[in-house]
Amino acid sequence: MSGTGAAPDPGLAHPGANGSAGAAREPTSHAARAVGLEAGNATSPASFFASGVHCGIKRKRPDLALLVSEGAATVAAMFTTNRLQAAPVLYSREVAARGTARAVVVNSGNANACTGEAGLADVREMARLTARELGVEPEEVLVASTGIIGVPLPMEAIREGIPAAARTLGREGETAARAILTTDAFPKTAAARFEAGARSFTVGGMAKGAGMIHPNLATTLAFLTTDAPVQAGPLREVLRRAVDVSFHAITVDGDTSTNDAVLLLANGAAGGAPLASAPELAALEVAVTRVARELAKMVVRDGEGATRVAELQVRGAASGREAHAAAMHVANSLLVKTALYGGEPNWGRILAAAGAAGVELREERIGLRIGEVEVVRGGLGVPGAWEAAAEELRRDEVHFDLDLGIGTGEAAVWTCDIGPEYVRINGSYAT
Amino acid sequence: MSGTGAAPDPGLAHPGANGSAGAAREPTSHAARAVGLEAGNATSPASFFASGVHCGIKRKRPDLALLVSEGAATVAAMFTTNRLQAAPVLYSREVAARGTARAVVVNSGNANACTGEAGLADVREMARLTARELGVEPEEVLVASTGIIGVPLPMEAIREGIPAAARTLGREGETAARAILTTDAFPKTAAARFEAGARSFTVGGMAKGAGMIHPNLATTLAFLTTDAPVQAGPLREVLRRAVDVSFHAITVDGDTSTNDAVLLLANGAAGGAPLASAPELAALEVAVTRVARELAKMVVRDGEGATRVAELQVRGAASGREAHAAAMHVANSLLVKTALYGGEPNWGRILAAAGAAGVELREERIGLRIGEVEVVRGGLGVPGAWEAAAEELRRDEVHFDLDLGIGTGEAAVWTCDIGPEYVRINGSYAT
Repeated sequence: MSGTGAAPDPGLAHPGANGSAGAAREPTSHAARAVGLEAGNATSPASFFASGVHCGIKRKRPDLALLVSEGAATVAAMFTTNRLQAAPVLYSREVAARGTARAVVVNSGNANACTGEAGLADVREMARLTARELGVEPEEVLVASTGIIGVPLPMEAIREGIPAAARTLGREGETAARAILTTDAFPKTAAARFEAGARSFTVGGMAKGAGMIHPNLATTLAFLTTDAPVQAGPLREVLRRAVDVSFHAITVDGDTSTNDAVLLLANGAAGGAPLASAPELAALEVAVTRVARELAKMVVRDGEGATRVAELQVRGAASGREAHAAAMHVANSLLVKTALYGGEPNWGRILAAAGAAGVELREERIGLRIGEVEVVRGGLGVPGAWEAAAEELRRDEVHFDLDLGIGTGEAAVWTCDIGPEYVRINGSYAT
Repeated sequence: MSGTGAAPDPGLAHPGANGSAGAAREPTSHAARAVGLEAGNATSPASFFASGVHCGIKRKRPDLALLVSEGAATVAAMFTTNRLQAAPVLYSREVAARGTARAVVVNSGNANACTGEAGLADVREMARLTARELGVEPEEVLVASTGIIGVPLPMEAIREGIPAAARTLGREGETAARAILTTDAFPKTAAARFEAGARSFTVGGMAKGAGMIHPNLATTLAFLTTDAPVQAGPLREVLRRAVDVSFHAITVDGDTSTNDAVLLLANGAAGGAPLASAPELAALEVAVTRVARELAKMVVRDGEGATRVAELQVRGAASGREAHAAAMHVANSLLVKTALYGGEPNWGRILAAAGAAGVELREERIGLRIGEVEVVRGGLGVPGAWEAAAEELRRDEVHFDLDLGIGTGEAAVWTCDIGPEYVRINGSYAT
């Protein structure tokens, strides 16, 4: 898997490509580079402002957030592939297609999904109210919702919430990050810097996730920002590649919600001409990928009732796509996830799950490592490895390395265990 | 979904076909008909004998079974699609391809999977030992195994077990059914009769299933027998169709094991010329389907830690295949399975899971019934239905009827809930 040279990132390769095809071209100079993760959030990049308020959709916790760019921002977006799409997804898809936006309004506590025509009217009103408060056009306002499904939005609360959120706008990326949560145990924010020539840029973001709870859906929402100037075409490409190795490489319970959305706004506030050269865009991509991946890993860590996170690296596949398919199948396997909970090095479950993914593999060449311990070699269990592997599985973060013995395709995904707590949360009446 | 006329069976349509295409042709007379399920097992058809013994693969419970036909039997077989295939699967596939067999030897407690060349040598020895005891050819002996993975078969135990099982052969279908179990809570047997002209035939069978437990795989094994005379070609077609609406229509934890196998032996002991006309084969198919479906439902009912079984009927799909895909996706959804455990009529989870299956649907036409209660109409929740639907969900068997609002494709699948007990069983160290 190739990195970017200037800032090698072991996971940047696109799972849709063959293992050796990196996502970003090799930069021609060291003028462009990503500096790495740092503390920060969606208002870390210049000229982004945010706020979070409680307006009464939920009983007590913050439930409405605004994220605003001072000037027009280029926008790239990816939405759920679920055939049922919530009203805000249908609406924001149109806004994003035009390529520029000024603001995002997000409510938690109600998904505005399976709400028919009334739901579409509500999302349009949310955009209008936000636009009026900010003095922008409704067509420049993106809308996202997460929470209960099949229940009309409580518009009275939202009509009070949007002006309140507009009044409190500031460098409040952390406050906004709390207002978009549903069953999440903690807010999720991250930032990274990168350089292109003499210019320095920032990427920031916030996300929510955390499986699902009655009767909410396991919606993943992520809002990424950058003060770099980028045109819509390259921005979309950067987002697509970054999502492939971050939000598309995690799984908590394997379901796709009606509301999933990842948005990336680039307002160019750091100045200068749009990033256009391969090294500049590669540096942007590394930074966006780092932020997206950090947020995605936080979503996994926050899986309902999860006690343990696993990174699953598959190598030796016929292609990057097959590696990704095998990794996701293993990561979604209930039997693997429960074994992870129990701390058992059940390598048979992992091999069988990979075999059930329908990808090419060669049994007599399969290898598996759990942490530092070689558990399977040449398709057969390594005698005496069980106890040492069980020790590795007691860690909070476990690394699996599975070699399918066919080719050079690679991919990495992240998952969490499933314990009785997951079942209790999702099976209970209590909201 | 069309039945067979003589013996209508609401689930006979093949999920691979469009909803209106039934599995069996309309019979031209009432001379051929299936009589229905009755108590019985794999030795209910004439001239089948069986036995079950404890030979020491497991600590205490029976672990080796024989199923023998007095004369040569036509054989049809379906095996796991997992890319990792256990030694007995590789071996028995060759036997089945030749189309005739005399006996099946089955051990539980050890899957003989991920065992390399040594595993293949062991399965050949099992066939030779069985052939010698029965005075038949090794090429006429099918072998199946289920249990722990990656551990060599304890051949000393098996070398004693096979003669012991041969000595106790009789109408011992129930005894054999107990010897093939692993984590199953109860043995699974069924039988049905059918008529063709003046002739009457019996179909019988046994199965094991029950999710999986460390470090066994969730293997499904089923052995079906009939005393009808049938040639290999039609027998394979009958089995394929019957499995489509039985073992392919159930899911406990969504994984495919390395050892799954369904075998059907037809020894013709009831006499006469091979069944060849459409009505005769249709009657056979109905009887085989009933037995297979009864066994498959028992496997679901016996899902580890399951407290509740659900039948999920999907209609209004673009095709039978799409209906089946949507039904299986919903049936495998962790969120649906935990809601089923909690007894919650979370219709949003069901709709979203169907949407995530990638099949065509029309949101504004979607309908959902839980038992007798209409929960969703025109894509929107029916006001006031929640409590009544929750009542329906408290039953041991729950029926869901989901209309996708597109076409006429239909399919039915069966699944079970997932409670904390599943996680405890699968996460624990104890074998």
